[in-house]
Amino acid sequence: MPTAERKAPIDVPRGLKGVIVADTSLGDVRGAEGFYHYREFSAVELAENRSFEDVWHLMSDGTLPDAARRAAFTAETAALRHLSADVRAALPAIARGTASAGPLAGLRTALSLAGAAAGFRPLYDIDPPRRRADALAACAAVPTLLTALHRLGRGLEPVEPRDDLPYAANYLYMITGQEPDPARARAIERYLISTVDHGFNASTFTARVIASTGADLAACLVGAVGALSGPLHGGAPSRALDTLDAIGTPDRIDDWLREHILAGDRIMGFGHPVYRTEDPRSRMLKAIARGLGGELVDFAVRVEERAEALLAELKPGRELHINVEFFAGVVMELCGLPREMFTPTFAAARVVGWSANILEQAEDSKIIRPAARYVGPPPAQPVPLA
Amino acid sequence: MPTAERKAPIDVPRGLKGVIVADTSLGDVRGAEGFYHYREFSAVELAENRSFEDVWHLMSDGTLPDAARRAAFTAETAALRHLSADVRAALPAIARGTASAGPLAGLRTALSLAGAAAGFRPLYDIDPPRRRADALAACAAVPTLLTALHRLGRGLEPVEPRDDLPYAANYLYMITGQEPDPARARAIERYLISTVDHGFNASTFTARVIASTGADLAACLVGAVGALSGPLHGGAPSRALDTLDAIGTPDRIDDWLREHILAGDRIMGFGHPVYRTEDPRSRMLKAIARGLGGELVDFAVRVEERAEALLAELKPGRELHINVEFFAGVVMELCGLPREMFTPTFAAARVVGWSANILEQAEDSKIIRPAARYVGPPPAQPVPLA
Repeated sequence: MPTAERKAPIDVPRGLKGVIVADTSLGDVRGAEGFYHYREFSAVELAENRSFEDVWHLMSDGTLPDAARRAAFTAETAALRHLSADVRAALPAIARGTASAGPLAGLRTALSLAGAAAGFRPLYDIDPPRRRADALAACAAVPTLLTALHRLGRGLEPVEPRDDLPYAANYLYMITGQEPDPARARAIERYLISTVDHGFNASTFTARVIASTGADLAACLVGAVGALSGPLHGGAPSRALDTLDAIGTPDRIDDWLREHILAGDRIMGFGHPVYRTEDPRSRMLKAIARGLGGELVDFAVRVEERAEALLAELKPGRELHINVEFFAGVVMELCGLPREMFTPTFAAARVVGWSANILEQAEDSKIIRPAARYVGPPPAQPVPLA
Repeated sequence: MPTAERKAPIDVPRGLKGVIVADTSLGDVRGAEGFYHYREFSAVELAENRSFEDVWHLMSDGTLPDAARRAAFTAETAALRHLSADVRAALPAIARGTASAGPLAGLRTALSLAGAAAGFRPLYDIDPPRRRADALAACAAVPTLLTALHRLGRGLEPVEPRDDLPYAANYLYMITGQEPDPARARAIERYLISTVDHGFNASTFTARVIASTGADLAACLVGAVGALSGPLHGGAPSRALDTLDAIGTPDRIDDWLREHILAGDRIMGFGHPVYRTEDPRSRMLKAIARGLGGELVDFAVRVEERAEALLAELKPGRELHINVEFFAGVVMELCGLPREMFTPTFAAARVVGWSANILEQAEDSKIIRPAARYVGPPPAQPVPLA
């Protein structure tokens, strides 16, 4: 027995909190500073000044495009929005089978099929240009799949993507069949940009673990969509809005909040595992919401103010700020997105971040294979005969 | 900024090698001893003395069943083999769409749909009995889905599962439509038992990361199937057999091996990241192969002997033994499984181990969310305007 090979197991915090599992040049989240960036650019600035396609190009190809490059990339990706006949044919059955499980189960299934039908091959069997092509195809297909399943579930025909609309506007268009007004299209575009990537959250890490086996891009993305569907991960922007509904009217804000804070309930839309300061995404989304304006926005702003004040009064010393869910929900509601599409809309942006992470992981050739500590009874007994 | 909250990042070996990510009472792999166990029982002894259903019960419910319990569990799980009308209806389109990508892409898609259609709910929203019911349903459906897709891909009608056959025999039956002879059914059953679980490999870890978000069981399993499809993970039992084909005849063994060993080629079927001694699964599978007998077995045994001898001569000091793929491929070939079904057959056993791991992870409520080190240019630049 070559005991020299045996190394002591390495203990780390539960949930791998703070454990560095990879080097990345895709971006970072500085929780204590309330700042996050994609490559070398502030994500919030990108959302303010750039198009979704620009940021997609940044994640995929490493740079912000100039005008000529933007036009080429936009045309290249718009052409990839259309589904193949095999995938279209399967969508009604997928919509039926996943109707009760929800749109992320639908996306998980449809994206699994679409990747296979598009001929995605194991990452370790293809070169970087082919990996990039598969990633663009997967990302471009996600809004089409999501909106087609959404409409089929309501007895409506899917709306064909329009190549002349930007990514965000085309997404809203495929949901309703109506071209969105520019303010709403831009609001959703800024939300999508702000959602592209955000550190090594569970879905991004899932995608990278699968990528470390060399599996194809769809295998990685399908795992990530699965992780995003977990209640501890992507499941909450609509719940923050449900909180606003539960409060109902401005005169009930204080009573409702006081009651729930004193009862120790978690107030949906407050608190984040990474940020100790205000979530920079919330600040931006609040500004977007204010730009759109209206009663819901005034109400949400008032709830935020009162919640912060009451939390400070009733739970002093706890740093609790609104998180990305709070105004994300408000913005999506104002843009006409149905609530069950809030987390799927998140997925329509995050797929760009997942894909960039998958391609970065594929540059490494080391499989991710951790260890566990056996804590059951000692395996001493012989197996009793049946 | 509450700097007291900031902890230094924790560096660990690449690929999380040796890093303890969880406590488990499901089993362990003692690589240096050439021993692995499920709960407190030797896996190899279980494969020798017990049925697949017994071991499934051990993983699911924690104990080896007595006769009455076995009968109840066998009946309970056999009844779950049948697919719902929605899933059946979608299978032809899934088989078409995944035809070129292979059976694991088909399983990934079909299992995603089947879980949704069966009403699987987020693990964190349901109690342990309901989680167990979902797990049994998923595991029981896997052979039906795999064999149905396999037959549809060949223009054949799926074969309905037979409730009166054990899991392994029914699996072979659904592939061919013929009841298998008892020796072959038992050989595959022993292979399946030996494949149920094996430490925190990439697919098992993937399943647990997704489970840590509270996602539904299908989301977790679909990610695991994706990881298994990676060439560095589950992709190789048929390649070991391809090696035998490439050698061709007994007289060419030495020349072929010498040439490839000297060229530094990896010889498929040799070497494992965990075992430094002989892989205990190989030893058992070799005995099973010998029990079935025939020319292929004699040839494989001879190739193993010569490969070990030549590796010792040409690469002295390296511990290289045949791994589980080598005789697994031989056994599956002798039992009439088509080569493209070798890794899927692995999945038909491992789904029991994945499910047990998922349910164990669901008892924890801590999301797995590691960290990364940003190594790109500093995010100092303002975003240039488009």
